[in-house]
Amino acid sequence: MKTAILGFGVVGSGAFEVLESYGYEVKRVLDIRPHDELGDKLTSNYDEILNDKEIGVVAEAIGGLEPAHTFVVKALKAGKHVVSSNKHLICTYYEELHKLARENGVTLRFTSSAGGGIPWLYNLRRSTRCDEIYKVMGIMNGTTNFILDAMISDGRDFDDVLKEAQRLGYAEANPSADIDGLDTARKTAISSSIAFNTIIKEENVQIFSLRFIKKTDIDYITGKLNKTVRYLGFGTKGENGVSAFVEPALLDANALESNVTKNNNMISLFGKSVGRLSFFGQGAGKYPTGSSLAQDVIDILNGSHELSFDPSDVKVSNDALERAYYIRTNADVNYDFFDKVDVIGDSKYIITKKITVSKMHEMAKDIYALDDSAFFAGIEE
Amino acid sequence: MKTAILGFGVVGSGAFEVLESYGYEVKRVLDIRPHDELGDKLTSNYDEILNDKEIGVVAEAIGGLEPAHTFVVKALKAGKHVVSSNKHLICTYYEELHKLARENGVTLRFTSSAGGGIPWLYNLRRSTRCDEIYKVMGIMNGTTNFILDAMISDGRDFDDVLKEAQRLGYAEANPSADIDGLDTARKTAISSSIAFNTIIKEENVQIFSLRFIKKTDIDYITGKLNKTVRYLGFGTKGENGVSAFVEPALLDANALESNVTKNNNMISLFGKSVGRLSFFGQGAGKYPTGSSLAQDVIDILNGSHELSFDPSDVKVSNDALERAYYIRTNADVNYDFFDKVDVIGDSKYIITKKITVSKMHEMAKDIYALDDSAFFAGIEE
Repeated sequence: MKTAILGFGVVGSGAFEVLESYGYEVKRVLDIRPHDELGDKLTSNYDEILNDKEIGVVAEAIGGLEPAHTFVVKALKAGKHVVSSNKHLICTYYEELHKLARENGVTLRFTSSAGGGIPWLYNLRRSTRCDEIYKVMGIMNGTTNFILDAMISDGRDFDDVLKEAQRLGYAEANPSADIDGLDTARKTAISSSIAFNTIIKEENVQIFSLRFIKKTDIDYITGKLNKTVRYLGFGTKGENGVSAFVEPALLDANALESNVTKNNNMISLFGKSVGRLSFFGQGAGKYPTGSSLAQDVIDILNGSHELSFDPSDVKVSNDALERAYYIRTNADVNYDFFDKVDVIGDSKYIITKKITVSKMHEMAKDIYALDDSAFFAGIEE
Repeated sequence: MKTAILGFGVVGSGAFEVLESYGYEVKRVLDIRPHDELGDKLTSNYDEILNDKEIGVVAEAIGGLEPAHTFVVKALKAGKHVVSSNKHLICTYYEELHKLARENGVTLRFTSSAGGGIPWLYNLRRSTRCDEIYKVMGIMNGTTNFILDAMISDGRDFDDVLKEAQRLGYAEANPSADIDGLDTARKTAISSSIAFNTIIKEENVQIFSLRFIKKTDIDYITGKLNKTVRYLGFGTKGENGVSAFVEPALLDANALESNVTKNNNMISLFGKSVGRLSFFGQGAGKYPTGSSLAQDVIDILNGSHELSFDPSDVKVSNDALERAYYIRTNADVNYDFFDKVDVIGDSKYIITKKITVSKMHEMAKDIYALDDSAFFAGIEE
């Protein structure tokens, strides 16, 4: 069985180099751009891959929804195994693609779609075979971790560090997907879908943006509260259903995540048998992510042909989970769920009583209406 | 294909419960003790398992060398896949068992022999397929981590915390294998053997014991040096061969290992493509280790029948790697590789220049001859 790679960008070319240099032949590469180094392997005609009986694995690294979606659907229907690094695709078409993979008796893998080089989704999936996972949690976005680490270590403000991250290529010119949480939300949705064997859509994941954090927040959180802050995705499963959300989170200084610096990622699962398992590594990059895509290919070449689970129907809501929050705002608000309010200059620094995640996100709309730069963060226990 | 478990102790019974409760039938259990709850599954006659054609996977959880070794050899020769949680067995017979597995076309797995519930060895092996691993490192022993964490957090002395660990069941009545490093050395040898595809024996691993650490060391390391200390196993591969050693190590406060508390483990690999990957979890216990044993069984039942590599012949020595050391001693010594010497009371607190690991372990013998409670720790960069 041979492999084709769709898309010769950062991840696709990384996977190509890794596979070829370890003796796993990549027969064809699909790209519309010229790549002389690929010689006859390069094609811009997908049918040449689809109709090639020797090609049993299609590794999609195009990104975005189209044409990736069309290509992946065709590959599955043609009885080819599919590997993808495309979180947008997997998150959006999770149900359809798993159904097609089951119906056609092929394997669908997408470890590199969350956590970059970390074998997170693969190990998470492996854990579900003989354990009950009740929580997934982690730093899933390197850009926001880079920003927070630099703000905390160097006492700099958000905009200043964001500009540096953009200069270093860690953040996009339009950084919204990172700092407003969509990237983490998609990875959280995919992780939670696997962990709880259900379908969490990106719109099920409630988000607090990181973009409103200021140096004054860092000073208060580290100086007054003796905590640190990271940007985390959460999925939990309890008696009342599944919750999923993305929030800045206040952590004790000795939490594992508190020592995750720079643009690294750390993602954890909590299982009834195994306890907590955490996975740390580089969340992006040509060779880390490329090698993770390559590993999924190699598993399939080695005979790991597990079929997709049939997802169960689970209620998704953030009504069941309660936590305390940190709020910094200039708005003249005082709700009965506020526990402690510290006024410094024009700002109120508020610690709330425990409140459900959904209620806090609802109340936040009222506070944002009065102060569009208010900052919200959950407090980890 | 069905499974047999050898040994119904802590790990064997944990794996049994995990497998059976997730629908993976364990056909027979070998134990010489009565276990009424096992009914007809229990046998004390190994031939009943060996001659049972339905049993394709033998999971060994007896521990120690005999009869585990005899049983595992017979299983491999009978063409059965073998899974083991037994670090002593795997470390001692690494070469023989891999050779037998290759010759008989069966799979040998032993993820649960290092790191308890952490899928460390399995992921390490997976990484070697398409990456060059140049370092493995980690906290591989929960007992010594529990002791260090309690000494640092509560300001207590070694003997006091060791007694508590024994009372809690974290340390054996004879704690030597944990605190003198043999347990970590075996796990380091196994990890390095996989990482570098060679054979590291337990006698290749040089060890500094943890038993000589005192409260005064903790005070100096945390107070004067602003570092923390963990007990680590190391394997490295460079141009001049492979090194393997177990030492207390001084770490920056923001190192990942510095936030690994209680009896948890964290083990890391460093690969040229993937960078650093770290794996955290519970390093022991009925359900964590039992579920890790069960996972190896399930992989085999699902068709992962990878064969053992043919190990290469690599020079093992600690001559190539240089690092600085911390030494605390009452001995009247002053070597030219000492960089800074701080005298407090009767004790010298020494930071050395960089020195090879082998040279330091050789010099340590001279210092121990003058002061049998001297303490040595490497300094991580």
